[in-house]
Amino acid sequence: MLAKKQYREAQKRALEYMLKAGVVLSEKERENISVADFGLGDLEHQGGQILTFFNTSRLSAKIIVLFPWQILPEHWHPAIGEDIGKEEAMRVRWGEAHLYVPGEPTPQAKGKIPAGEEKNFTVWHEVILRPGDQYIIPPQTLHWFQAGSEGAVIDDYSSTARDLQDGFTNPRVVRETRIVDD
Amino acid sequence: MLAKKQYREAQKRALEYMLKAGVVLSEKERENISVADFGLGDLEHQGGQILTFFNTSRLSAKIIVLFPWQILPEHWHPAIGEDIGKEEAMRVRWGEAHLYVPGEPTPQAKGKIPAGEEKNFTVWHEVILRPGDQYIIPPQTLHWFQAGSEGAVIDDYSSTARDLQDGFTNPRVVRETRIVDD
Repeated sequence: MLAKKQYREAQKRALEYMLKAGVVLSEKERENISVADFGLGDLEHQGGQILTFFNTSRLSAKIIVLFPWQILPEHWHPAIGEDIGKEEAMRVRWGEAHLYVPGEPTPQAKGKIPAGEEKNFTVWHEVILRPGDQYIIPPQTLHWFQAGSEGAVIDDYSSTARDLQDGFTNPRVVRETRIVDD
Repeated sequence: MLAKKQYREAQKRALEYMLKAGVVLSEKERENISVADFGLGDLEHQGGQILTFFNTSRLSAKIIVLFPWQILPEHWHPAIGEDIGKEEAMRVRWGEAHLYVPGEPTPQAKGKIPAGEEKNFTVWHEVILRPGDQYIIPPQTLHWFQAGSEGAVIDDYSSTARDLQDGFTNPRVVRETRIVDD
């Protein structure tokens, strides 16, 4: 749940990150950045700011902005009907992103989890992505990611996105953002 | 057919366009820009400079640079096996691109075709794409595009690319670029 004012402030802040990263936007897109708190009410620590360029029956492209140390919570893209699940390629344009996927847990990983949330983050194989680095996440694969100290601007290329049907490790997550009057 | 020197010069020039457009590249990618003359030996008028970020069994992403008034010749992405054909989303980052697709021919279209090549360009419905504009080309759909007077840098998002199997209107096109010693 986000107050309208907080939502608008996060939109504005995300737009500043996108422009700093050289993302070229239409006038309409500048107004269309969505802010997700995943129902956790702690946007600064767990959330994301997302602009969808398009989402067809085969392809999607988004820009994701994470503020410094903001986490996009652990989730996976399930098979739905004939779709084996979303395949997602992340490519960092600006800042630094720490991506966590299944595999050997990385000793002294950089990830910082809010106290009490440890059980909601189960994969700890760390991939550090800096500008120009990319990583492709297979369908149905657990992953979460967190910005470094400056934040991150990420090009996110994928097959069809069905965000509301993503699975989250944290049972408290609600993918649809509720906005309430200030 | 391109001489090595011409190939290298076009790579270097394309890199300059990408950097001017704010494309963020790894060191390795800077060396990997491919130059295509489509076997026509007239790169300045018909050709393209292409950097592939990735190409999986479901997704591909490229940056396409066209020099001023350079044409990427008319073609389509055929069905191959279980693939109904490549779906392609073009999004201009820098400059201007003129895209031509089936539909009502645009009166006084901006397209400039080399003399004698008219029969190789059969679709004339013009879509002008400026920075932040995007257009999605369905599978199996004829299209060609040309940069405006400054050139163009284009984000090209698609399903799997099988460039060598694309169909071209011009029977003289050879998709694989032959490079010869200077």
